[in-house]
Amino acid sequence: MNKIPSKQELLDTHNRIKEFIHNTPVMTSRLVNQYADCEIFFKCENFQRMGAFKMRGAMNAILQLSEVDRQKGVATHSSGNFAQALSLAAKSLNIPAHIVMPSNAPQIKKNAVASYGGIIYECKQTQDARESTLNEVVKETGATFIHPYNDINVILGQSTAAQELLNKVNNLDYIIAPVGGGGLISGTALAAHHFSPTTIVYAGEPKGASDAWESLNKGYIVPSINPNTIADGLRTSLGDKTFPIIQEFVKDILLVEEKVIIHSMQFIWERMKIIIEPSSAVAYASLLNNKDIFKGKRVGIIISGGNVDLQNLPF
Amino acid sequence: MNKIPSKQELLDTHNRIKEFIHNTPVMTSRLVNQYADCEIFFKCENFQRMGAFKMRGAMNAILQLSEVDRQKGVATHSSGNFAQALSLAAKSLNIPAHIVMPSNAPQIKKNAVASYGGIIYECKQTQDARESTLNEVVKETGATFIHPYNDINVILGQSTAAQELLNKVNNLDYIIAPVGGGGLISGTALAAHHFSPTTIVYAGEPKGASDAWESLNKGYIVPSINPNTIADGLRTSLGDKTFPIIQEFVKDILLVEEKVIIHSMQFIWERMKIIIEPSSAVAYASLLNNKDIFKGKRVGIIISGGNVDLQNLPF
Repeated sequence: MNKIPSKQELLDTHNRIKEFIHNTPVMTSRLVNQYADCEIFFKCENFQRMGAFKMRGAMNAILQLSEVDRQKGVATHSSGNFAQALSLAAKSLNIPAHIVMPSNAPQIKKNAVASYGGIIYECKQTQDARESTLNEVVKETGATFIHPYNDINVILGQSTAAQELLNKVNNLDYIIAPVGGGGLISGTALAAHHFSPTTIVYAGEPKGASDAWESLNKGYIVPSINPNTIADGLRTSLGDKTFPIIQEFVKDILLVEEKVIIHSMQFIWERMKIIIEPSSAVAYASLLNNKDIFKGKRVGIIISGGNVDLQNLPF
Repeated sequence: MNKIPSKQELLDTHNRIKEFIHNTPVMTSRLVNQYADCEIFFKCENFQRMGAFKMRGAMNAILQLSEVDRQKGVATHSSGNFAQALSLAAKSLNIPAHIVMPSNAPQIKKNAVASYGGIIYECKQTQDARESTLNEVVKETGATFIHPYNDINVILGQSTAAQELLNKVNNLDYIIAPVGGGGLISGTALAAHHFSPTTIVYAGEPKGASDAWESLNKGYIVPSINPNTIADGLRTSLGDKTFPIIQEFVKDILLVEEKVIIHSMQFIWERMKIIIEPSSAVAYASLLNNKDIFKGKRVGIIISGGNVDLQNLPF
């Protein structure tokens, strides 16, 4: 693994982006605690700008560009929260964001990107088409490609959610975050390592998209092939920047069934009155599935986001 | 009108109940502000214990009973949030709560009351049956009847939401709350009168249940007959304790159509990632309908609660 980012780099990252992001609230619920048999502190990134933690990484990646590069804009391929995040982050600095999306992406996601000022380029839904379209866009515009998670500046940005959580809540025994491409969980693990070394970090992952769990067990990156989960943010494969951090600093990956994810999502909506997306429910679901580990402990859970299609709920 | 409660009485109420309730957060959203063309501060009683402001009034009414009366328990007729609130408030003090509900009340509401330890007495769905069942329960148990809203201690309890809002946010030009029986709006108006006399208080009411608006215009209480609105908390009639306070301290009642209520509810869910019930959306809807009044102003909105049936959403 490359040198891991220092504590100072994490602190600098937070200082760099803090004026552009929300320091989101940490919420608790005695009913949820009773049910889960431990004390949970939810770091609510569903209240982050554009509705997800991805804003943090996008903002940091752009702010690390030189002024000349920044003016040429940024580009990415994503049909999810990162597309919206990069669009809004770019808009905050008055620079263009070029977003490559498969033409069959849901209209609601295209609308969201457009509403944040992102310039959409549609392509076929193959990996090849995504990459060739992105390459053309980058060539024509001079924009810098920002990877949605496999980029150290994005990872550093995502670390700031756990930094803020650890600033507000002392003596956490555990932190759990979901794992998809690994940007959030690796950032979270770095923050715990530097700011609260006794806090153990777990990842939650859907059984229907268990590539990170397999990768950790086999010792090499197993790509995500035909993932089958409602947690649409967690269908991606790990990257060579995120995997080594997970190997070194994440204790284990806890797998959860779809029905537990959906039950957990509904339970949080009903009891806490907050809207969380399925990917966020995965972290809480992995705790419910492993009550023996967390019983009586202080547990931080990163609620990754709250962007859901209300016309298309799983319950 | 009877003598209105003094500033000191409002302060005493807050001190009396504060250890039993949440001082709920005040939330803001720049997107919502842009859309509404003013600066809104949402007092989030959807995050209150049992999911609604009613907890405040129930708690205060019980705490004002003598120790002897308290031990005999409390009773009410309600199929809504007040039944749950009285049950949980009683449970917090280890006393019984006797709840009279029509037998055709939704099972989800019966379950909620039971989960808070309320003892349910089913009756026919007429007003006569409600009252006679309640009278029997009170006679048999010696419990004290607490009216869901037409009770000065309940009104004083509800005033604490606006007290907390005015403590946190200075220089509010307006506060808007929904009006049903009038407990919340009259408490809110009393708080503004004593703690921020320049703040103007408006009520929001569904057009399909416009009895409060009619009452205010006619100068006497017009009962709510066959109300037709999704805002199930706002179908009740005003009481002789709430109406005079509304007459004196509420500037006006703003009526809103069902479709604006539903649109507002969905908009808040999507943009703020919080779950609010239709009654709560009425206050925000009444602002959208009257942008000329609120343009560029600082407006507090009391989000009354977040108890909704997720299996039965209007959008």
